[in-house]
Amino acid sequence: MFFASDNAGPAHPAVMQALADANAGYALGYGADAIMDRVRDRIRDLFEAPQAAVYLVATGTAANALALASLCNPWQTIFCTKMAHINVDECNAPEFYSGAKLTVVPDEAGRMTPEGLRAAIEAEETRGVHGPQRGPVSITNVTEEGTLYDTDQIASLSAIARDHRLPVHLDGARFANAQVALGCSAAEMTWKAGVDAVSFGGTKNGCMGVEAVVLFDPEKAWEFELRRKRGGHLFSKHRYLSAQMDAYLEGDLWLDLARASNAACARLAEGLRGQPDVAFVSDPQANIIFFRAPRALHRKLQTGGAVYYLMDGTRDGAEDAPLTGRLVCDWSMTEAGVDAFLALL
Amino acid sequence: MFFASDNAGPAHPAVMQALADANAGYALGYGADAIMDRVRDRIRDLFEAPQAAVYLVATGTAANALALASLCNPWQTIFCTKMAHINVDECNAPEFYSGAKLTVVPDEAGRMTPEGLRAAIEAEETRGVHGPQRGPVSITNVTEEGTLYDTDQIASLSAIARDHRLPVHLDGARFANAQVALGCSAAEMTWKAGVDAVSFGGTKNGCMGVEAVVLFDPEKAWEFELRRKRGGHLFSKHRYLSAQMDAYLEGDLWLDLARASNAACARLAEGLRGQPDVAFVSDPQANIIFFRAPRALHRKLQTGGAVYYLMDGTRDGAEDAPLTGRLVCDWSMTEAGVDAFLALL
Amino acid sequence: MFFASDNAGPAHPAVMQALADANAGYALGYGADAIMDRVRDRIRDLFEAPQAAVYLVATGTAANALALASLCNPWQTIFCTKMAHINVDECNAPEFYSGAKLTVVPDEAGRMTPEGLRAAIEAEETRGVHGPQRGPVSITNVTEEGTLYDTDQIASLSAIARDHRLPVHLDGARFANAQVALGCSAAEMTWKAGVDAVSFGGTKNGCMGVEAVVLFDPEKAWEFELRRKRGGHLFSKHRYLSAQMDAYLEGDLWLDLARASNAACARLAEGLRGQPDVAFVSDPQANIIFFRAPRALHRKLQTGGAVYYLMDGTRDGAEDAPLTGRLVCDWSMTEAGVDAFLALL
Amino acid sequence: MFFASDNAGPAHPAVMQALADANAGYALGYGADAIMDRVRDRIRDLFEAPQAAVYLVATGTAANALALASLCNPWQTIFCTKMAHINVDECNAPEFYSGAKLTVVPDEAGRMTPEGLRAAIEAEETRGVHGPQRGPVSITNVTEEGTLYDTDQIASLSAIARDHRLPVHLDGARFANAQVALGCSAAEMTWKAGVDAVSFGGTKNGCMGVEAVVLFDPEKAWEFELRRKRGGHLFSKHRYLSAQMDAYLEGDLWLDLARASNAACARLAEGLRGQPDVAFVSDPQANIIFFRAPRALHRKLQTGGAVYYLMDGTRDGAEDAPLTGRLVCDWSMTEAGVDAFLALL
Repeated sequence: MFFASDNAGPAHPAVMQALADANAGYALGYGADAIMDRVRDRIRDLFEAPQAAVYLVATGTAANALALASLCNPWQTIFCTKMAHINVDECNAPEFYSGAKLTVVPDEAGRMTPEGLRAAIEAEETRGVHGPQRGPVSITNVTEEGTLYDTDQIASLSAIARDHRLPVHLDGARFANAQVALGCSAAEMTWKAGVDAVSFGGTKNGCMGVEAVVLFDPEKAWEFELRRKRGGHLFSKHRYLSAQMDAYLEGDLWLDLARASNAACARLAEGLRGQPDVAFVSDPQANIIFFRAPRALHRKLQTGGAVYYLMDGTRDGAEDAPLTGRLVCDWSMTEAGVDAFLALL
Repeated sequence: MFFASDNAGPAHPAVMQALADANAGYALGYGADAIMDRVRDRIRDLFEAPQAAVYLVATGTAANALALASLCNPWQTIFCTKMAHINVDECNAPEFYSGAKLTVVPDEAGRMTPEGLRAAIEAEETRGVHGPQRGPVSITNVTEEGTLYDTDQIASLSAIARDHRLPVHLDGARFANAQVALGCSAAEMTWKAGVDAVSFGGTKNGCMGVEAVVLFDPEKAWEFELRRKRGGHLFSKHRYLSAQMDAYLEGDLWLDLARASNAACARLAEGLRGQPDVAFVSDPQANIIFFRAPRALHRKLQTGGAVYYLMDGTRDGAEDAPLTGRLVCDWSMTEAGVDAFLALL
Repeated sequence: MFFASDNAGPAHPAVMQALADANAGYALGYGADAIMDRVRDRIRDLFEAPQAAVYLVATGTAANALALASLCNPWQTIFCTKMAHINVDECNAPEFYSGAKLTVVPDEAGRMTPEGLRAAIEAEETRGVHGPQRGPVSITNVTEEGTLYDTDQIASLSAIARDHRLPVHLDGARFANAQVALGCSAAEMTWKAGVDAVSFGGTKNGCMGVEAVVLFDPEKAWEFELRRKRGGHLFSKHRYLSAQMDAYLEGDLWLDLARASNAACARLAEGLRGQPDVAFVSDPQANIIFFRAPRALHRKLQTGGAVYYLMDGTRDGAEDAPLTGRLVCDWSMTEAGVDAFLALL
Repeated sequence: MFFASDNAGPAHPAVMQALADANAGYALGYGADAIMDRVRDRIRDLFEAPQAAVYLVATGTAANALALASLCNPWQTIFCTKMAHINVDECNAPEFYSGAKLTVVPDEAGRMTPEGLRAAIEAEETRGVHGPQRGPVSITNVTEEGTLYDTDQIASLSAIARDHRLPVHLDGARFANAQVALGCSAAEMTWKAGVDAVSFGGTKNGCMGVEAVVLFDPEKAWEFELRRKRGGHLFSKHRYLSAQMDAYLEGDLWLDLARASNAACARLAEGLRGQPDVAFVSDPQANIIFFRAPRALHRKLQTGGAVYYLMDGTRDGAEDAPLTGRLVCDWSMTEAGVDAFLALL
């Protein structure tokens, strides 16, 4: 009954097998391995972007920070939501890599609002050289609240960015979960909706530790490579990153795994929905649920063996105080696991 | 006949097995996995340093840059040799992470000279607030030229650093190769010789991608953790770093692998030593050989299938021009591989 | 009728005379001039802080950025209001110098609220190593909205900072205006109320370009000197900074000048107060007024020769749309100047 | 008898008068003052560069660091000599502003050698993404050793830079001294010889504290403005920088002042040349002399009232040990001052 995070589950056996298969003889390092050539092709195909620059790193924070640094200058500000991973969960990595600052844009249920974005952009640069200059817009899909931007919503934010000639970054730590939930293509969720750069996650969805950065402007390629090396994120034995991503994409494994975690989450949501004391913070749309419940209920669940985070308090305290819990399903969550949780209610 | 680098070979099967074993069920992320507890103990035992702060990252550049950043301030300068990995092979990562600059100290056969270090240190800070301030001394063992510092040599450099209250960093990307060649203990090569922080390499010696940073001053621990996260080097599924390092240390595998690569290298050196056209740049002491030979000989070797780097030219040009080649043996290099190379001569 | 800013007026004649007086023969550079010894004593006396570290720089942005950098680490966040000069008017200088990020705290009429500060601090570091770590609290007095913190209000914010062991910085670009308006001492407004470091402005109040940084913890002194030099803010011919500050402090000139600008502003406010179409955004307490009026009125004023900024629009547009204007009086503003403005109404 | 530095003398009376003249009424800030318009024109005329971007800052370190940052990326290295001001006298400011590192190129008598530059450039980027990438070449004229590059020498270095598409920066802290000694035009010493950006000094030659940065590529203008603001180097009361530079350029005052300091230095050199115990380190060509003499002689001079720096020791020690002294003449050095020094010999 582990619902604490989708980065705590195991890697998929096919990913592990690919690592074992890759572990034979010598291979050129630093991204020049043959598997990476195949991965690059796969990702370009997947995104219908034959010229895209494609690179692998091992952590989501590295992917986001490097992608954003490639899109901006150190005198700019990056527009994001308050709960954006880049704002609250990366210990200043985006600022460190880019030199830029972050400006918080209002959101609804984790989604940046178009009016909020427009107002935030227009509030900057009213001060000429004195203020931070406008920089990239960064959104996350699946959002940090477990909701989704549909492709129209992404496009409408991108259009506002475009009006001000600002690039758009998509933090896709849970890209696969968003894509299967939306039923769209990777291209539709990104460049067709105006996105310039994507952090394409693998780690949370069945890999050991690999994320792709996809830059639709191929002219950014060499700069990105230098930034990655300067950040210490270029792997010598790169084939082991490549192999993970290769297996992840093979036969649409990545989509199957996301379907599995979304389905487990839907089953969980279904079970919670009928409970009198339980309310969703926002409608769960992918593999994450935020729910409000009395402390007593959380205590019962956690004492019963359910592992998950409380966002705004601890399980010790007044019985009936409402607290928010976060439940995340990874690809390996079983129906039995979900049902065991629900049985505790 | 792959002698280009020890970071191009495969991981050892025991390391791969450990990854497979670790891949079961859920595990806490970000270094809180149970395997890491064991790794920390192993490394503390190994270094006879029960209080040391021990962290894992995935690349040597990250290990060096983060370790150095933890030892200095951005207005200081780091003393290293001209060919130091941190100076020429990390694309400004040490400067990026630390804010400091690097001052080149004279070396002999890749080893920083005590007189050179003393003079370089004394040349700084003659200008008060105007000049870069004195910062850490960083040495590499095995050196970038394939030579060794013995423990007395390390101690004599550390003593100079200590005279000026400067910390000492050891880039141990090939720590194991140095230790088995010297026949000393890890403690003797480090804190007993005055070293404050170590980049303890695993990647070049049979791992997929893992390096430990060992800080003998435990008060640096929390700062290091924050720097690692801010650099994007904290792994969510950390158990896969832990598992590699765990297997690497189990039963002294790490020393066995280093003995194997050193032995292959010695066999190679032995075979080269008798050749009339071949001269060593410096006496090979671990698993790296730098040798001078006429271009025609390099061409014969490379055409015959030997893969290695020429350091100062290409194989096309005047027949008899002397060029420097670098040969590196990794743990998987066989006697047959060495003999096949020697047979080309 | 120049009300655009207090940094557009002339320097006071006594300041100019001091420069002329200082311009004789040779003087040691870089802060070792004899005038600086006197300035240091004056500022220590003024703040009743005989051990304080005192340094001069030429711009307010340098003073703020260097002071904040001396109080924090690059993995922290600085708490400030949305309209804080460091947030919107320094083009990322605080982030550049400190490496830290900024967290916006709610304010009322430009003053950070205690509840807002407490909540903002408590919201950080709920995520361990992942989130930005808590850093300094920075407040501005006179605030960017022309209001004042009284000493109790400062103390109550400092107490919250102290509860979390966070240092407090005071941006005193208009320190003198605040002090004379409050009728307190410099010590009461700063260290006696829990402030650790002050940007003590001279430029806006009759100097050419000089600001002092006062660090009440003398152990920060040498680090500050190195940061100042590294930022390019150490003046070789430092005596010309010293001379300005010396004249500024001599015979309480600085307080007289602030009294003059506050008095001009009060006269201006008095005249505006009775106007039917005019409303103050907040009660003007020092030398700055924010007022709402129909566009037609702004147009009349500006066409008539009054120079000041409109904060949220331009003077072209619908007649009756309300717009916010900002009026700032500097030390050289005359009663006649104020009356000429009021006559336009 | 003050020969310690040309930044310790007074400002020229015409500069002081210009400040007094500028100190009337209100003026737009931040470089929008009318005097700056005239300064920009003057400098463009002077450099025969009608499109050049021209900015003022208050310190030489700021000018160099900002100019270099505008010419490079943080993954590059800047080529300079060992004794370059940017390498040893700016406490890492160039690295701080640019993110780049510095590579030391061999010099002769303070002048970077063409062969040394070519070799240094070619040694970089033999390692692809791993090494620092080639960046700007920075030279100083008058050099830090008091020698000169003539225009052909500058052009030959620039040609090497150009071969590798690298920009060239000229640190002209003593630009005027170099120009009058060479008898060339400002254009001949800069863009006609391949220079892209100049730090054009005023402070050491009769100003209080002002340096111009001249960027011959006008497309760098806005980026430079943002960098200047972000560094805290944009002056609100900018007219006082403008006024200094305006007076400095009026009627070729700047050249007259440099002629005066060069002439004083020549008289000093003439007097030293005949002394049996004195030897020049290199031939003095502008306003700086490095000379070797026995400690006893230095002691006699300094005890007699001559103020100057010893570069490699103190005046206490063995009588006959040779030490290097540095003598610098500023514009205000009189014949009487020089003769008084010589009389001590």
